[in-house]
Amino acid sequence: MESFQSRAQAQALDAEDRLAGLRNLFDLPANLIYLDGNSLGVLPRATAARVEQVVREEWGRGLITSWNAAGWMQLSRQIGDGIGRLIGAHADEVRVADSTSVNLFKVLSAALSIVKATHGTAVRRRIVSERSNFPTDLYIAETLAREAGFELVLAGSAEELPGLLDERLAVLMLTHVHYRTGALHDMAALTKAAHAAGGLAVWDLAHSAGALPVDLNAANADFAVGCGYKYLNGGPGAPAFLWAHARSIERMDALDIRQPLAGWIGHATPFQFTHEYRAAAGVERFLCGTPAVLSMAALGCGVDTLLAAEPLGGLEALRAKSLALTGGFIDLVDRRLTRHGVQVMSPRIGQHRGSQVSLSVPEGGYAIVQALIERGVVGDFRAGDAAFGEPDLLRFGFTPLYVRHVDVWDAVEHLLQVLDTGVWRSERF
Amino acid sequence: MESFQSRAQAQALDAEDRLAGLRNLFDLPANLIYLDGNSLGVLPRATAARVEQVVREEWGRGLITSWNAAGWMQLSRQIGDGIGRLIGAHADEVRVADSTSVNLFKVLSAALSIVKATHGTAVRRRIVSERSNFPTDLYIAETLAREAGFELVLAGSAEELPGLLDERLAVLMLTHVHYRTGALHDMAALTKAAHAAGGLAVWDLAHSAGALPVDLNAANADFAVGCGYKYLNGGPGAPAFLWAHARSIERMDALDIRQPLAGWIGHATPFQFTHEYRAAAGVERFLCGTPAVLSMAALGCGVDTLLAAEPLGGLEALRAKSLALTGGFIDLVDRRLTRHGVQVMSPRIGQHRGSQVSLSVPEGGYAIVQALIERGVVGDFRAGDAAFGEPDLLRFGFTPLYVRHVDVWDAVEHLLQVLDTGVWRSERF
Repeated sequence: MESFQSRAQAQALDAEDRLAGLRNLFDLPANLIYLDGNSLGVLPRATAARVEQVVREEWGRGLITSWNAAGWMQLSRQIGDGIGRLIGAHADEVRVADSTSVNLFKVLSAALSIVKATHGTAVRRRIVSERSNFPTDLYIAETLAREAGFELVLAGSAEELPGLLDERLAVLMLTHVHYRTGALHDMAALTKAAHAAGGLAVWDLAHSAGALPVDLNAANADFAVGCGYKYLNGGPGAPAFLWAHARSIERMDALDIRQPLAGWIGHATPFQFTHEYRAAAGVERFLCGTPAVLSMAALGCGVDTLLAAEPLGGLEALRAKSLALTGGFIDLVDRRLTRHGVQVMSPRIGQHRGSQVSLSVPEGGYAIVQALIERGVVGDFRAGDAAFGEPDLLRFGFTPLYVRHVDVWDAVEHLLQVLDTGVWRSERF
Repeated sequence: MESFQSRAQAQALDAEDRLAGLRNLFDLPANLIYLDGNSLGVLPRATAARVEQVVREEWGRGLITSWNAAGWMQLSRQIGDGIGRLIGAHADEVRVADSTSVNLFKVLSAALSIVKATHGTAVRRRIVSERSNFPTDLYIAETLAREAGFELVLAGSAEELPGLLDERLAVLMLTHVHYRTGALHDMAALTKAAHAAGGLAVWDLAHSAGALPVDLNAANADFAVGCGYKYLNGGPGAPAFLWAHARSIERMDALDIRQPLAGWIGHATPFQFTHEYRAAAGVERFLCGTPAVLSMAALGCGVDTLLAAEPLGGLEALRAKSLALTGGFIDLVDRRLTRHGVQVMSPRIGQHRGSQVSLSVPEGGYAIVQALIERGVVGDFRAGDAAFGEPDLLRFGFTPLYVRHVDVWDAVEHLLQVLDTGVWRSERF
């Protein structure tokens, strides 16, 4: 990464960055280098006014009429369609609702029911995932496995996964980009292997939707879920989304499989208040309760920031910038920080990496992150589970919509100073 | 109700109403008689500024630090404690999360698991409810029954319920106040009967929380859920709440029962990201995914409007006013509208009634509601399911926090004029 030989070179990259103007879509605090968009995205400039409009006008003035007049009932599909453009979904294949955990419960349950109805659980009874997958995914899967007569089998590393895709596979459930390391799975290849083994593939896009191009239909995946408040900039606890392949819907219909959270908003005719449940057509059936309109409106503004990049090359262009940012960061860490024992724990090959870089340090990871925050560089700390030999990690997310090349330079410079001065050993951290 | 002999008498009641000032806590559209707070409560004056603070300051400036610094992680419990004061819960027994449907799924599943672990399902396998219960409750129950080996048994009327509480009862699941008729169940008596039969009682407080005094612990209920956007004025799709009796938590611990949506926010130590699920203590275990902070903040403002009534006598005083409003409305309908064939379909005895009154008309119910809305009187229309001989209903909710006695008078006057003139037969409705 010769381009990052100096701060001036980083500034030059920003000056010629065609995506640089997208940063103006956000209301970033002054003098903050925010490298935590993989945990909570920043506030889009449009959001506060939009939310105020929903509160004061649509709710305050329109009241109950706004369910139709202000389009509240359409928000889930409308925002879902916007997300669909980021993840390779067709129109009307995505819905926004609930949380990622709840949505995973719905689609994983549906996937398991399809397998059970087709093959039984005598042999094909494994949910395969990674031991270090985001905990909530494992909790949801383990609980469902326990209830439905499946078993959760966890690969100790990504390399072990292919060996677990055999006649015992029911569902392969993975997070596309690893929340700790930023390692990126080959969705198409793993889905193909899962299908070849006779199983289904469910993907969690929490750290990939909005961060890099995803093409669910091209990958031929079966179900997917994802998060609204990371790279989609939907705000704290924004509603999540879910996607189902058209084939999955057909299988649910053919096998009379109901998603487990069968609530009134996913009914074919919710406002007829009929006593019998009848699932809505398509992915709409995965809705359950009344949508959280305020949070949903904010998510819409977040998704719009990504759609605004479409005329500039969209996620392909954002991905190229993201790889330049993360690649430059890795290179600078290697050149400037190894004497402090800092190690890069994310894949060095760009195509194997999401939009974050994780580092390990010999000691004091938590304090180092706090010292960086004090200097205006926000990353986060994730403790490793000692029982599995996981190292503690310093995570830095690089959201290409608003992170600049110069931020990469400055972040490394700050980290170097924190380590050089040993300020992190201060009692206040 | 001699007090409602004239508009002047209704105005006199407002003049002496100690609760009248609470109306100033809300931002009501001018010249609107809003009788639909049982569907969507109105906007509290404090909400827009609070939501803006969350968006611009807590999210925009504080970003990820606000999970702790702005108390986002505490909102669920904090607002839950406020709701708890309205429903007879002890501190730390209520949490705000997800939707009513999703919360019902959690607690009903837990209740069924307790019964199954204690008695099996050979005999004790019935979920008993009402055929005309709110549809989503029945959909959730029927889906769970199907999965877990129970059967859903529906009483055709409230009178049939006691006869269904026998040795076959697993769980009695009822909505405290009926969404169509406003009929109010005797929670303590029915819970006692369910327990005497050896079953558990799960209550949906959608139309009672914030509308009338509820005392879950005094009634000795087992679990409860409720809605944030009706009488709690939390805004469209506000998060819902759930409650569990301390005994229910103890049973879950003793029998090793996990709630089915076991996600990371309900983990004992969510930020340790441990691979194994371990339920949080108490009701906290019923949380699942990341809380929707924007919607939650708005709900907090709504709950505050009810807590503001505490120095004025709280829900006991609000209940007295509500009964005066609904009783006056019923009396005026009887006196002025029977010649148009209008019938009161809600209980005439106050203690059997929630805070709404439903009417039936010989024809044109939908158009009549539309004609009323055009005149600035907002109620709603609920079609009856012809298969069960249900009549179409005109629903009018009387939220005592902001509905005035004069609104009752004026609403009846408008309805009379709509019927006298026959304007509802116009093509535009």
